[in-house]
Amino acid sequence: MLKAPQHQVAGHEAAGVGNLGPLVDGSGSFYKPLQDDKRGSNEVAFYTSLSTNNGIPPHIRRFFPRFYGTQHIEASDGSGLLPHLVLEDLTLGRVNPSIMDIKIGSRTWAPESSEKYIEKCLKKDRESSSLPLGFRISGLQIYRSKELGFWKPGKKAAQKLSTEQVKLVLRRFVSSNTLNDLDLKPDCAFASTVYGGSTGILSQLLELKAWFEDQTIYHLYSCSILVTFEKELALQGKNPGAQIKLIDFAHVYEGRGVIDHNFLGGLCSLIKFISEILTAPSECKIDVSAKADQKNLTD
Amino acid sequence: MLKAPQHQVAGHEAAGVGNLGPLVDGSGSFYKPLQDDKRGSNEVAFYTSLSTNNGIPPHIRRFFPRFYGTQHIEASDGSGLLPHLVLEDLTLGRVNPSIMDIKIGSRTWAPESSEKYIEKCLKKDRESSSLPLGFRISGLQIYRSKELGFWKPGKKAAQKLSTEQVKLVLRRFVSSNTLNDLDLKPDCAFASTVYGGSTGILSQLLELKAWFEDQTIYHLYSCSILVTFEKELALQGKNPGAQIKLIDFAHVYEGRGVIDHNFLGGLCSLIKFISEILTAPSECKIDVSAKADQKNLTD
Repeated sequence: MLKAPQHQVAGHEAAGVGNLGPLVDGSGSFYKPLQDDKRGSNEVAFYTSLSTNNGIPPHIRRFFPRFYGTQHIEASDGSGLLPHLVLEDLTLGRVNPSIMDIKIGSRTWAPESSEKYIEKCLKKDRESSSLPLGFRISGLQIYRSKELGFWKPGKKAAQKLSTEQVKLVLRRFVSSNTLNDLDLKPDCAFASTVYGGSTGILSQLLELKAWFEDQTIYHLYSCSILVTFEKELALQGKNPGAQIKLIDFAHVYEGRGVIDHNFLGGLCSLIKFISEILTAPSECKIDVSAKADQKNLTD
Repeated sequence: MLKAPQHQVAGHEAAGVGNLGPLVDGSGSFYKPLQDDKRGSNEVAFYTSLSTNNGIPPHIRRFFPRFYGTQHIEASDGSGLLPHLVLEDLTLGRVNPSIMDIKIGSRTWAPESSEKYIEKCLKKDRESSSLPLGFRISGLQIYRSKELGFWKPGKKAAQKLSTEQVKLVLRRFVSSNTLNDLDLKPDCAFASTVYGGSTGILSQLLELKAWFEDQTIYHLYSCSILVTFEKELALQGKNPGAQIKLIDFAHVYEGRGVIDHNFLGGLCSLIKFISEILTAPSECKIDVSAKADQKNLTD
């Protein structure tokens, strides 16, 4: 029995008009419709390359969703059989996951992209936090409580968060006092169990960083890190299952002997923000109205 | 007695028509004419900020030229007194220095730059190796011998080197067999003494990297790392004085709590290239005609 997944926070995959949307089978597979332009075939090519590449160490391979091939599936609207990527369902077993989809890189386009595509992406990069921060939050949901459900800002709002707002969201993500959307003093109650520790988010990000300092196989443009954990488990003092996964590979290019400095730079920027929360969880800057633009030293 | 410096390899500072050029006094000071638009005042503001900022650790401060203030100097063409930055002369005591001026960052413009400036820089970044590599060689001179002097490609040629050519130049820079400009098999004879070792270039770059992973004070756009050493000393088995210095701060912005992910990414890319030379000095890829463009995985 295929059904729409419960916890999509971002991406092309959201179902809409003329857009089938992804499906899950409830037993571990996630069916992602192939985008019908070149992006679909690019993503299949990436997963195929990844699954046959012996150069990816196991401790890095676990950051990618498992790939089970492609499959044609009957469209629910009866429009026929459509090709899907069959991937690991990253939210299997999750009850009320808090999720952030963080698109990494200050640049979401490859040097060889078409003029038209570059122009489109550059505009988005400049309008979002990608350019100043080296990443942007493409979507998120933060679990609040059984009664209140999730805090889930719109995708556009998430992408345009200012620097200070992004810092705030990264704190709210691991806070217990998120009942009021406008709460401005996140308590970072779960920072040490979710971000910290030997298996926490920061530790995973640092493993990924070490690999990106060295690997010259792939350049990942417009790729996201999906950060998830289960707040209710944290509340019960259990392991909240904090994990990162890389997703969205429609714009992967060969590295050809050069590291992915664009991804790496953005990743280091995210790491710095997370580190700061762990170093000073109580120091929450509240000044969300602060001008987030950079200033020239003489301005 | 002020005179023109002997070893300029790049930059606005080169003397030309209507352009006075920099001067040295032979006893340690380098006089850089203030660019008369905002760039001049920006660079003074940066050096002033740097010299009064207690947050720069000494082992990092040494990577910046010493700053002795500003001074008005009589133009040699009699056009009057002109303001100059008075900086440390980085080539003082050097006899025949090999020099590379490496402009760091895949992006040489700040998010807040004017549309016109962004357009100009983006074009240059895309036409040079900045975009694919995260840095570009803005100029270089490689000492060959007393008879042959320096190999000094034109600035434009240097900037447009392909990925494979940049790798080759980084190898030629530390090779003894550079007599023939077209020589395609650099022997990397001085790689271990110049790039390697506890005080070599790689070690210095790694110290800088660690700082950039953490510092959120400055964002350096269009800033260069100047790499120098004295080949004749290396030939005599002496310490070749390998050093890096950061130069050109006309486009520095406040970091405002964000790391300089653009500089850091490019720096990591350079570090990877240098590391590879040290790991496999004999493995010189000769295929300079190889298509240096990245390819989409399905191309």
